[in-house]
Amino acid sequence: MTDCGSITGTVSLAHGDGGELTHRLISDLFLRYFRDEALQPLNDAALLPAQCGLLALTTDSFVVKPLFFPGGNIGTLAVNGTVNDLAVSGARPLYLTVGLILEEGLPLPVLEEVIAALAAAASEAGVAIVAGDTKVVERGHGDQIYINTTGLGLVAGNIDLGCHRVRPGDVIICSGAVGDHGLAVLAARENFGLEGLKSDCAALHTLILPLLENFPGAVKWLRDPTRGGLATTIKELALSAQVDIILSEEAIPVHDSVRGGAEILGLDYLYLANEGKFCAVVDRVAAEDVLAFLRRHPLSCEAALVGEIKEGSGRAFLRTALGATRELYLLSGQQLPRIC
Amino acid sequence: MTDCGSITGTVSLAHGDGGELTHRLISDLFLRYFRDEALQPLNDAALLPAQCGLLALTTDSFVVKPLFFPGGNIGTLAVNGTVNDLAVSGARPLYLTVGLILEEGLPLPVLEEVIAALAAAASEAGVAIVAGDTKVVERGHGDQIYINTTGLGLVAGNIDLGCHRVRPGDVIICSGAVGDHGLAVLAARENFGLEGLKSDCAALHTLILPLLENFPGAVKWLRDPTRGGLATTIKELALSAQVDIILSEEAIPVHDSVRGGAEILGLDYLYLANEGKFCAVVDRVAAEDVLAFLRRHPLSCEAALVGEIKEGSGRAFLRTALGATRELYLLSGQQLPRIC
Repeated sequence: MTDCGSITGTVSLAHGDGGELTHRLISDLFLRYFRDEALQPLNDAALLPAQCGLLALTTDSFVVKPLFFPGGNIGTLAVNGTVNDLAVSGARPLYLTVGLILEEGLPLPVLEEVIAALAAAASEAGVAIVAGDTKVVERGHGDQIYINTTGLGLVAGNIDLGCHRVRPGDVIICSGAVGDHGLAVLAARENFGLEGLKSDCAALHTLILPLLENFPGAVKWLRDPTRGGLATTIKELALSAQVDIILSEEAIPVHDSVRGGAEILGLDYLYLANEGKFCAVVDRVAAEDVLAFLRRHPLSCEAALVGEIKEGSGRAFLRTALGATRELYLLSGQQLPRIC
Repeated sequence: MTDCGSITGTVSLAHGDGGELTHRLISDLFLRYFRDEALQPLNDAALLPAQCGLLALTTDSFVVKPLFFPGGNIGTLAVNGTVNDLAVSGARPLYLTVGLILEEGLPLPVLEEVIAALAAAASEAGVAIVAGDTKVVERGHGDQIYINTTGLGLVAGNIDLGCHRVRPGDVIICSGAVGDHGLAVLAARENFGLEGLKSDCAALHTLILPLLENFPGAVKWLRDPTRGGLATTIKELALSAQVDIILSEEAIPVHDSVRGGAEILGLDYLYLANEGKFCAVVDRVAAEDVLAFLRRHPLSCEAALVGEIKEGSGRAFLRTALGATRELYLLSGQQLPRIC
């Protein structure tokens, strides 16, 4: 029997059975890091004050491997990923729930490190963790830690984002360099020995909400290009808005380390996941002002106008540096599992 | 490469990469069963109408093994478990999110059966599935399907439930026979060949909300005794309310199949999980009326007054049929993992 009081030992099946060890895990570990008053670990649900406005609700499970990588870990990712899904929906993130699936044998100090990072990320993002759940599965039926976070946010009244607002002539702005997260995780997992890679994992709401406040009409559509990368996100937009989109390869910001690493590995950085970037469809008239606004924020100092919307029927293209054009499709068959 | 269009084949890692196969899984499977208009699979969050009242938020992950058992499956459990957590908090369940962690190699027809059951349970319970997420992990790092559901509900304005309202002299009512779920799952998993076992998995809000409406002051505290069973729930109550509690063994409803099966396996049915029962602390004056009310509902026709609250300091006892008294503690060391 492990002793989780001193946060040594390993996770056992009994930590998930709802009895004494579950209680000790909650009191000796979780409640040391999660301190919101709405979090009543022995209650069945968190009771939250009324929010009289449009609500946004989103869920994401995180199975990233390895748990720790340059620039983040599964705990920071689980907070920022869900915060960003709310932010690109125009919502102020308020509350998170955290559901853990732990593998028997997980060292408790590893769990503590993840929980500490998760709590710190939530605190930094200003979201309260108000409910949680822990299950334990036998050795060989998990992979250390899987985390589900579900986020509840409040949408400002005047926000109207969506592909219904996208028109030919609009432009696409990307908030910064692409591919960092996907390649950093892949390199950490496979020990490729590539240098200078670091996940861009970050919470974007302190950037996005002021953007929407300052350019309420001009910003028409937002998305964070996570799994599937920029190319998949743009192709999805083309399909749902029933327009064509042309990206300019030269305009897309990408760090040299990512460009070089992707080339060595035979990967296309346009399909690598991002965890601290967004794409926006913006009215062309406001594009320069939006770019200037973004470049003043540390999370988007490399923002760039990367493409434009054309009349069309759901196709996406990349105009290459050499002037050729190639069509972009949804990610297909690239085996980069578990990057988030 | 599998073909999920015809819902044959198996889950591959590419079903979780956010690209083409993820899209096909969503359109060919999930959207055939999940049809709420707030569910916009290509959006990052569901936008929900304002709910001007106290909100309840709860999360639960389900790792039950086997996936299918007499009386339910992981899909019905994932809906009813979260619905019940909202209901015992006095909230009307409104919305659910569904996060799936699938193991590579899972047969797609099995996934479809679970999704169909989950959708049917949600529809029956009147809750809308408004957001989802799917991740895939490699063979040997999951166990077919894990499901997280997070539930959002609205609390009626005049509801005040909690251990702060529990007083010596109050009584404990259990809504029906205990132990069915835990033993049914265990028997199905281990092929014990025990007869007549069936999980009590059910959504309780259509029972609990009218109960609270009819007895707003008299019902003081509610809990669904899932993991850890009735005994752990009662011990938790004693600890948080700082009272002593005495249960009467003779009064606790238990089906003969469960009593007999538990005896054969050397298990205490008081510690077996329930998924369609609740315990209530009720003002003694109203107890008979509450019991009569409950017994008219099919989900609680075996409701019984099973114990009483005494002055004390957090201890729980069972008065046995023979007149002896034994102390009850939190579940400890019984290895019944993955029953929910």
